[in-house]
Amino acid sequence: MNLLERLDLATPILQAPMAGSQGSALAIAVARAGALGALPAAMLSVDALGQEIAAVRAATERAFNVNFFCHEPPPPDAAREARWREALAPYYAELGLDPGATKPAASRAPFSAEHVKALAANPPKVVSFHFGLPAPHLLAAVRGWGSLVVASATSVDEARWLEEHGVDAVIAQGSEAGGHRGSFLGDPRAAVPYQIGTMALVPAIARAVRVPVIAAGGIADARGVRAALALGAAAVQIGTAFLRTPEATTSAVHRRALEGAANAGTAATALTNLFSGRPARGLENRLMRDLGPMSALPPEFPLASAALAPLRAAAEAKGDGSFSPLWAGQAAPLAEAIPAGDVVRALAL
Amino acid sequence: MNLLERLDLATPILQAPMAGSQGSALAIAVARAGALGALPAAMLSVDALGQEIAAVRAATERAFNVNFFCHEPPPPDAAREARWREALAPYYAELGLDPGATKPAASRAPFSAEHVKALAANPPKVVSFHFGLPAPHLLAAVRGWGSLVVASATSVDEARWLEEHGVDAVIAQGSEAGGHRGSFLGDPRAAVPYQIGTMALVPAIARAVRVPVIAAGGIADARGVRAALALGAAAVQIGTAFLRTPEATTSAVHRRALEGAANAGTAATALTNLFSGRPARGLENRLMRDLGPMSALPPEFPLASAALAPLRAAAEAKGDGSFSPLWAGQAAPLAEAIPAGDVVRALAL
Repeated sequence: MNLLERLDLATPILQAPMAGSQGSALAIAVARAGALGALPAAMLSVDALGQEIAAVRAATERAFNVNFFCHEPPPPDAAREARWREALAPYYAELGLDPGATKPAASRAPFSAEHVKALAANPPKVVSFHFGLPAPHLLAAVRGWGSLVVASATSVDEARWLEEHGVDAVIAQGSEAGGHRGSFLGDPRAAVPYQIGTMALVPAIARAVRVPVIAAGGIADARGVRAALALGAAAVQIGTAFLRTPEATTSAVHRRALEGAANAGTAATALTNLFSGRPARGLENRLMRDLGPMSALPPEFPLASAALAPLRAAAEAKGDGSFSPLWAGQAAPLAEAIPAGDVVRALAL
Repeated sequence: MNLLERLDLATPILQAPMAGSQGSALAIAVARAGALGALPAAMLSVDALGQEIAAVRAATERAFNVNFFCHEPPPPDAAREARWREALAPYYAELGLDPGATKPAASRAPFSAEHVKALAANPPKVVSFHFGLPAPHLLAAVRGWGSLVVASATSVDEARWLEEHGVDAVIAQGSEAGGHRGSFLGDPRAAVPYQIGTMALVPAIARAVRVPVIAAGGIADARGVRAALALGAAAVQIGTAFLRTPEATTSAVHRRALEGAANAGTAATALTNLFSGRPARGLENRLMRDLGPMSALPPEFPLASAALAPLRAAAEAKGDGSFSPLWAGQAAPLAEAIPAGDVVRALAL
């Protein structure tokens, strides 16, 4: 039975989980339109995740995907935090903020035994992981549920590693993709100059593994879906095309930046570690221009976001996205402000 | 009449001109197999180019492309040259070379009035340009010949600029592509983090211009060709897939590195300015690892290569590619050591 049949999908499209920009409303709309909806768990408490899953189940009987991060939370590093706050101090001054101001930043927690306990009674049909896979006993629990396990690879070596560790499908995350790179073998910062475009990555991974390959990165219309399938993908995962839908929770400054890209027919995006500590693709904004998109200044993932939180809140209150992560893939100009179901139908072959 | 009909091509494939790695033999083999062969002129004297063109004409009546660079040669900068030689001094010592050693480095000359004069009597059917377009009077001469004018864009803005300046087709050079980025609006070094993958660049450029779009970058098999056409390209330009053919003049160390990538099913490539002064994609080697692939050290294009020439020659004599530009696109693992005609036939739909 192929991937589509196992998931009972009308169309070979997975909605990319986008922590911070969507919840159950988008997953529901996508599922109802016949694609695979996704719930990003990384920024939710275990209780909040349970409520989101319940909301999806109340609205649709379709399969859905729950996505988790698998990073190792770093130890606090006071010196690096101080250096980061020092680099940001001029912006605090400019916005009239107390340099010691703090604000509860969205935290990002990895998949844990707590999640296993909470999900075991009624597990989702698909569980996907980013930044590798969880510890063997946690992964074994998920596999024991019968959930399909999917994870992201940004290289052939990562795809082979994931297959060896028992995933049911590999997401080939081309360098065009928005949001965090899934890179997990070696230092993700050092890997940035070596990231591979979807056109080259999908066929290379399709040759290297036997499990189905899901193409991601730079795909936001039906032509892109056709191209990805021609390259050997069994399905595609699409995020940016959903960011402007009413069902997403994308912020106002983020929507405005995406609208600008659509109107211009072009978007300047880059991989940046400024907003979280880990490389992720977003639309260029002032912080990226000022400090350079990749920098040695921010603390390790996910600690970089805390010192930015007061700046981000103060600027966003004025409609200014200078300090906000404006995650987007390189197909950002194709994203339209239309309902998610219409996005799925436009993508369908 | 569409692009293929104007060029009388059996298959929508253009061989990418690869200065330093090929001459008339590859162009002839490609032309005979029904694709568009190309002669790279940048590293040839005007006389040598004339001989290469004559060799192609003696072998085939098919159309071919002559490719020129359009950079502005920089003024010599003794301080930068000294800094670069200082950075390379430890390698000179390691290889037992006199630190003041020089060697005639391959120079790279832009399209000029001399070329116009030499080609006017019997111009090639296609003339392509890299790094923008030549001065208006030079471009007008080429257009006056009736030659088809093609040039590379690495962004939507560059594609629009080329269309406004009268090109007959735009090459959408995705970030996967091997060799020099064609970037010409703004500083090419500053543009590196913003380079766009083929999957996103081709549809964006196809929406932005009315002239035909030729997709380049990450395409090295028939699946890639199909994918590019699905994205809206009228044709594809392919380089790396020809580097291991017997008709190419690819060096022994370069061929060995490509063979390694094919055997591994994966290749580490990055954009680097170390070898010429301008960003170009090549297989990672020792110099890239030691200095970082992008560096502030090398002089402006094309001056960086001179100080490397003695190192490169000494190392290559020992079968060592540590100081050689090993140009390759991200589809390098797909390149096979087979005749160029077989490559064309494998790519054909």
